[in-house]
Amino acid sequence: VLTATWDVGTAEKGGYPHFMLKEIHEEPEAVKRCLSPRIRGGKVELGISGLPDDTLAAVDHIHIVACGTAMHAGLVGRYAIEALARIPVEVSIASEFRYRDPIFSKHDLVILISQSGETADTLAALRLAKEKGVRTLAIVNVPGSSIAREANDVLYTWAGPEIAVASTKAYLVQLSVLYLLAVKLGCLHGQLTEQQEADYCRELLEMPAHIQEAIDHEPEIISCAKQLKDDEHVFFIGRGVDYTLCQESSLKLKEVSYVHCEAYAAGELKHGTISLIEEGTPVIGVATQPSLYPKTVSNLEEVKSRGAKVILVCREGDKVDSELTTNLLRVPKVRDILSPLVAIVPLQLLAYHIAVLRGCDVDKPRNLAKSVTVE
Amino acid sequence: VLTATWDVGTAEKGGYPHFMLKEIHEEPEAVKRCLSPRIRGGKVELGISGLPDDTLAAVDHIHIVACGTAMHAGLVGRYAIEALARIPVEVSIASEFRYRDPIFSKHDLVILISQSGETADTLAALRLAKEKGVRTLAIVNVPGSSIAREANDVLYTWAGPEIAVASTKAYLVQLSVLYLLAVKLGCLHGQLTEQQEADYCRELLEMPAHIQEAIDHEPEIISCAKQLKDDEHVFFIGRGVDYTLCQESSLKLKEVSYVHCEAYAAGELKHGTISLIEEGTPVIGVATQPSLYPKTVSNLEEVKSRGAKVILVCREGDKVDSELTTNLLRVPKVRDILSPLVAIVPLQLLAYHIAVLRGCDVDKPRNLAKSVTVE
Repeated sequence: VLTATWDVGTAEKGGYPHFMLKEIHEEPEAVKRCLSPRIRGGKVELGISGLPDDTLAAVDHIHIVACGTAMHAGLVGRYAIEALARIPVEVSIASEFRYRDPIFSKHDLVILISQSGETADTLAALRLAKEKGVRTLAIVNVPGSSIAREANDVLYTWAGPEIAVASTKAYLVQLSVLYLLAVKLGCLHGQLTEQQEADYCRELLEMPAHIQEAIDHEPEIISCAKQLKDDEHVFFIGRGVDYTLCQESSLKLKEVSYVHCEAYAAGELKHGTISLIEEGTPVIGVATQPSLYPKTVSNLEEVKSRGAKVILVCREGDKVDSELTTNLLRVPKVRDILSPLVAIVPLQLLAYHIAVLRGCDVDKPRNLAKSVTVE
Repeated sequence: VLTATWDVGTAEKGGYPHFMLKEIHEEPEAVKRCLSPRIRGGKVELGISGLPDDTLAAVDHIHIVACGTAMHAGLVGRYAIEALARIPVEVSIASEFRYRDPIFSKHDLVILISQSGETADTLAALRLAKEKGVRTLAIVNVPGSSIAREANDVLYTWAGPEIAVASTKAYLVQLSVLYLLAVKLGCLHGQLTEQQEADYCRELLEMPAHIQEAIDHEPEIISCAKQLKDDEHVFFIGRGVDYTLCQESSLKLKEVSYVHCEAYAAGELKHGTISLIEEGTPVIGVATQPSLYPKTVSNLEEVKSRGAKVILVCREGDKVDSELTTNLLRVPKVRDILSPLVAIVPLQLLAYHIAVLRGCDVDKPRNLAKSVTVE
């Protein structure tokens, strides 16, 4: 049996002005604590007794159900599982899923993600799936929480307590667990060789160091926050897995700074939203995927030509026209599918620093609760 | 062979100040022209030779791929097909789908929706599906367009020319065709009896009259537009199929009035975005589904208690606390799943009238083109 423990002492701010900043700085350690016990000799060992390998090998469709930031983690999980295991994955907002009369088949797996394990809509979705006789797997941070107890099986994220209302390190460990699951499913579904599994395992174990490198860019991120602190509208654009990061970044900035931001699939901008772009509108482009990089940059050039102030999150070494951007946020170059683990970091820090510059109550934003235990 | 014809005369404004308003007023006629030739003796006759009944009966998974408003029509189509035929449907943004390496199976059907039939990303998605050997069905308005020509089969929407950049009547006929397809699939998949098919057919044929009733509420909609014309942020919330209407309404208002609006699944508000609600923030609730009505109203009460100005779109006869709303937009009571055909009408008119009151160039918004033929 795997259990997680933490004590009251770890819930203090440890010299940081806010829990949110402390928790971002804890990300390398949290990801390490989540990943390293589950990787042994180049192999993923999930340690979930209720889901033996032959059951996982038979899964032919996955529903990921969650709310807010956990749902955004699920969107990354979808890319990882579809890419590595070629199993179709559908991600649903829990409050939508539970009222939709979802269609299940025999070999479906429902994955519920919740930091607190008490999110009301996610818990209701879990009960619905169980009622329909579908297998459930929870990805949860808080041990012994309702979702952890009621799901057929649990993968704990072992992030330690998260106190700030805006979730940061919990998102990273949710991604970490989803990557482990994607690798495991990829092996069991004959999509990954032993060598590939070992490569993924090694690269995952290197991620905490890369996350630290991303955090070390904090001074550039603070400069960028100063550029954006007075803007009341911010757009995020990206493609593929970068679009999911835009969704999470937009939510984070909204939550803590009350700026009206919105995430767009970069290719959809021209189908309406580009009409909102005028002189000085900030557009943050996330472009960490080499195959999509030129397309997203081209969309940024379009908004630039309409006066937008362009900020770009891209990898070390990617070529950028210095005319295009007012700020450039570089992230370490890692394997494409793993880039969310590093690329979200500057965006979380940006949300934090904008909120601080705007004088917001960062750890306890107005109207929000840490875990949403009502519908 | 079914063909669509129109002449230059029909492309004039016919006394309306803008094409957008003219095209909204043409909706009852467009829907009638789209539906009535395809319903015979209480049965749906799609008339698509390339997709015989036994092929449609074997379809076990559907991908709907489109951009902008057509994609939002696809989201309604998903609800209709899943509810009536119990076939799982996935809706994708074309620019995301084509780069995602989608997973296809043997009995999949890919449905492409495009008013112009020339949308670049949708055309590329069609070619990708064909390359992978998957059956394709296009739902298109413009005869002989690229997507119409290249798809394995076509269902024309017969809306006549749509000139305004912001699509309105094309959305309604796209829904109409998707409802016909949902009924047809429901019968072929053993989910609907002959009597149920006949009931749906009758109710669909009654929809043009109900759409006209919705249009006849224009004076109340103009009053509501006056309330909202100076707001720079507007939120739309809804659940289930109402959420899809929120997405389309938000896009419409953005396109023509340059207001920063955003659609939220009502249950997700509490997971972040509610922090943006302050004194006077307009929140438009769409609640046309009896089973979800109390939940959405409860979310509206929450935003109201934080100072929001609440506008509610609901059905004739639904009980509403007069304290809750500043404006109430009633739509005819029709069968739940068909309500999008009437409920979108006041929201299109609202977008139009807000844009007119703000002095925007309604038919040709800045930065936008009628059909997006580049990526």
